[in-house]
Amino acid sequence: MAKRFRSLTVDNINQNVRAMKYAVRGRLVAKAEGYSQAIKDGTSTGLPFDQITLCNIGNPHALKQQPITFFRQVLACCVYPDLINSNDIPSDVKTRAQRILDDTSNAGLGAYSVSRGLLSIRKSVCGYLGERDGLEFDPEHIYLTNGASAGIAQFLNLLISEPNDGIMIPIPQYPLYSATIEQLGGVQVPYYLDESNGWALSVEALKKSIDEATANNINVKALCLINPGNPTGQNLSKENLIEIAEFAQSENLTILADEVYQTNVYAEGDCFTSMRKALSESSAAKTVPMASFHSTSKGFVGECGMRGGFMELVNVDPLVEDELYKCMTVSLCPNLPGQVIVDTMVNPPKQGEESYELYTQEADNILSGLRKRATMLVDGLTQLEGVTCNPVQGAMYAFPQVRLPEGALKAAEAAGVPADEYYASKLLDATGVCVVPGSGFGQEPGTYHFRTTILPAEERMEHVIAVMKVFHDDFMQQHTHVEEDF
Amino acid sequence: MAKRFRSLTVDNINQNVRAMKYAVRGRLVAKAEGYSQAIKDGTSTGLPFDQITLCNIGNPHALKQQPITFFRQVLACCVYPDLINSNDIPSDVKTRAQRILDDTSNAGLGAYSVSRGLLSIRKSVCGYLGERDGLEFDPEHIYLTNGASAGIAQFLNLLISEPNDGIMIPIPQYPLYSATIEQLGGVQVPYYLDESNGWALSVEALKKSIDEATANNINVKALCLINPGNPTGQNLSKENLIEIAEFAQSENLTILADEVYQTNVYAEGDCFTSMRKALSESSAAKTVPMASFHSTSKGFVGECGMRGGFMELVNVDPLVEDELYKCMTVSLCPNLPGQVIVDTMVNPPKQGEESYELYTQEADNILSGLRKRATMLVDGLTQLEGVTCNPVQGAMYAFPQVRLPEGALKAAEAAGVPADEYYASKLLDATGVCVVPGSGFGQEPGTYHFRTTILPAEERMEHVIAVMKVFHDDFMQQHTHVEEDF
Repeated sequence: MAKRFRSLTVDNINQNVRAMKYAVRGRLVAKAEGYSQAIKDGTSTGLPFDQITLCNIGNPHALKQQPITFFRQVLACCVYPDLINSNDIPSDVKTRAQRILDDTSNAGLGAYSVSRGLLSIRKSVCGYLGERDGLEFDPEHIYLTNGASAGIAQFLNLLISEPNDGIMIPIPQYPLYSATIEQLGGVQVPYYLDESNGWALSVEALKKSIDEATANNINVKALCLINPGNPTGQNLSKENLIEIAEFAQSENLTILADEVYQTNVYAEGDCFTSMRKALSESSAAKTVPMASFHSTSKGFVGECGMRGGFMELVNVDPLVEDELYKCMTVSLCPNLPGQVIVDTMVNPPKQGEESYELYTQEADNILSGLRKRATMLVDGLTQLEGVTCNPVQGAMYAFPQVRLPEGALKAAEAAGVPADEYYASKLLDATGVCVVPGSGFGQEPGTYHFRTTILPAEERMEHVIAVMKVFHDDFMQQHTHVEEDF
Repeated sequence: MAKRFRSLTVDNINQNVRAMKYAVRGRLVAKAEGYSQAIKDGTSTGLPFDQITLCNIGNPHALKQQPITFFRQVLACCVYPDLINSNDIPSDVKTRAQRILDDTSNAGLGAYSVSRGLLSIRKSVCGYLGERDGLEFDPEHIYLTNGASAGIAQFLNLLISEPNDGIMIPIPQYPLYSATIEQLGGVQVPYYLDESNGWALSVEALKKSIDEATANNINVKALCLINPGNPTGQNLSKENLIEIAEFAQSENLTILADEVYQTNVYAEGDCFTSMRKALSESSAAKTVPMASFHSTSKGFVGECGMRGGFMELVNVDPLVEDELYKCMTVSLCPNLPGQVIVDTMVNPPKQGEESYELYTQEADNILSGLRKRATMLVDGLTQLEGVTCNPVQGAMYAFPQVRLPEGALKAAEAAGVPADEYYASKLLDATGVCVVPGSGFGQEPGTYHFRTTILPAEERMEHVIAVMKVFHDDFMQQHTHVEEDF
């Protein structure tokens, strides 16, 4: 007879869940939320700041980025179709909303769609990808998702079967990958990005990583890459991506390309190349299975709360694709408002349409603000003693390295927390600025980083940089001093 | 050295995914979608019907049920706050939308919320549950979710750790349960509902089921119940639920209570009792861990596409609750439009408020239509030769049993499909009515059922019943005749 389950405790739940770590919303964030609530409740006496600045997460609207008017008008008309008759709504908004409602057979946003999402929206996605890459896309290989995260988790779930199934992930990485792999009971196979070379991704590093894993009996199934990088901000060149595709071919790997920051590229003259485009120009064009992911949460869109996104598949065996789709049918369909926002993102107003001018103005303003703050932030950070930081070529984050004095390492050890968390925690206590310690993303052993967003509005960003400077100088002095006291 | 992964095929993906079945959107639905597309494209010559009626899924708006005006107005105002200044929007809508926007710190629906959902909406949920059960609820134990499905899947993922971990599910059941358990690599532990007794759930059946499982070395961890029943439509009494709670206590089980049809109770004088209420009146009030689930997709709301829902936890060890919450943080937050619809559902306009009359009228119309069609459908089905069907006390489905003639069983065998699928497939071919074969939900071996919704509007329902009768008579005659020919 089986030993009967005796009650619900952390010892008898899914131990993969228990082992999983997820720092972006971890201990420090809980502390920041506590401060925030205290400020709201007026019980915050004695705090050296009057506001929390959440630089821990790419949540643009929470830091006062405004939504694009066209996007919201289209969604409002789809939600409440009476608005289509309103005189205050631009004609291109009405046309767009009507097309989407027609595609629901006039059932509207309250009906489940097919599990891969509304056909006309998947066609819009194909139009966008086609224009981006100069290639043909088929709506049958597009899957709308609840944000990019849901698609990535579903694809990883499809891949990981055995405890020795490995997935290659960059270090540093976005912890969705490590957390999901851990939860699914697979193995993280880390490859290191080269910090001293602008966080470059080299095929040598990939080769070293897979050989080591294979020697350890790990069955490496897929290679995840994040481009532009999160938290690292690098933008990979087409040549580099082609090399990576051919590496995947030679090693029989599936590629997962996280490209949610594809419209966040800031460096002068620089542009984004998709893995799909690079694959098509490589010798692996017809062989390497690939899933790429995009989202409505980033770019200048920033519609995180809508949970919109999509996945595109290429070279995936049709039987495998059927299995993936079956998983999607169990959760019925991605939320319809998110689907609508995907449509507006990939198919914005065109020149000559009523909303074009306002749309262009809003989008340009947001992007130029991000570009300016990317530079501001890196300039500010690199002025700090012992801090280096690669340029933010893309995405929404800086990932500076902090050379911590021995005294800080000892103090952290005494406090029983990783040294980078100790630093970030002191920063929060002193300034109200919440960042994520580098250990949440992974880093070369013995190095210490943190991730901070470029999202605070310009004035607020100036403030963030200023208080960071005061804190940092003080921290360094204090912990250098302590060390001398030992 | 590990055997290196050689390409992405169905043989090397996650085999739990491959084993998983999900009938609600299975083979028959794909066929129905094909017919639908052919009718749309005008290439459907020779089909004996001019329209597909999707009775396979509880998707009310797809069958012309209208959304509640108040719900959509509130959501439209949250999406596009300029509307709050419009003269066409009722004052209670404006107040509601403003309260929700305030709770986002005016970041709006584009910002991630905390992972458990906006606090003011969780407070609204507590108000609703409190009024329903006459008990106190704490917003810290309420978790907003992307529909009920997401919460159920997350809780099952928390529970299932080892290949012999078992979860008790009713037979017949909603296949989200069987599919998710299969995907997570656990064991389904079926308990049979008593068809001859109105699909009653007896503690004897539970006891028999768990004893058998335990004897087979299965570690039974939880008991799922669906009340009102899907696909079976029964509404469990308080006394029955108290017995079940005490059974769970005696066997150290966690309860998952799927109560998404709690406002769909039709029988005269009958009312819904929550498992939470029953638990509170049982001797297990302080001991049995329970998660209950509700959704915006059912009731008279029918907002399936919004993917709104919530989970309430009671008696769950705080450390376990922390682990569950950690999983939720990885997918960031439930979609904000779905959160808004939850708020409108649990906190509708009150007497004296501007939207009250229209709201009441709309809700009453929908519910009385459902009630009427529940009876119409069962009356129609039970007139068919060899068909019996329990009354639809609640939920949205009838689950009739069809006694198939020997000839039909042989024809199905020859066609290589289960006999109930054979019947449902012929029904679709002849009438355009798509139902789900009973084998998708589970049934006593040797019995054949199908699930069909009460959702088609009255006139359409009359048509469905009429064409089913013609088909059924014909089918029975044909297959009885065939049998005589053998």
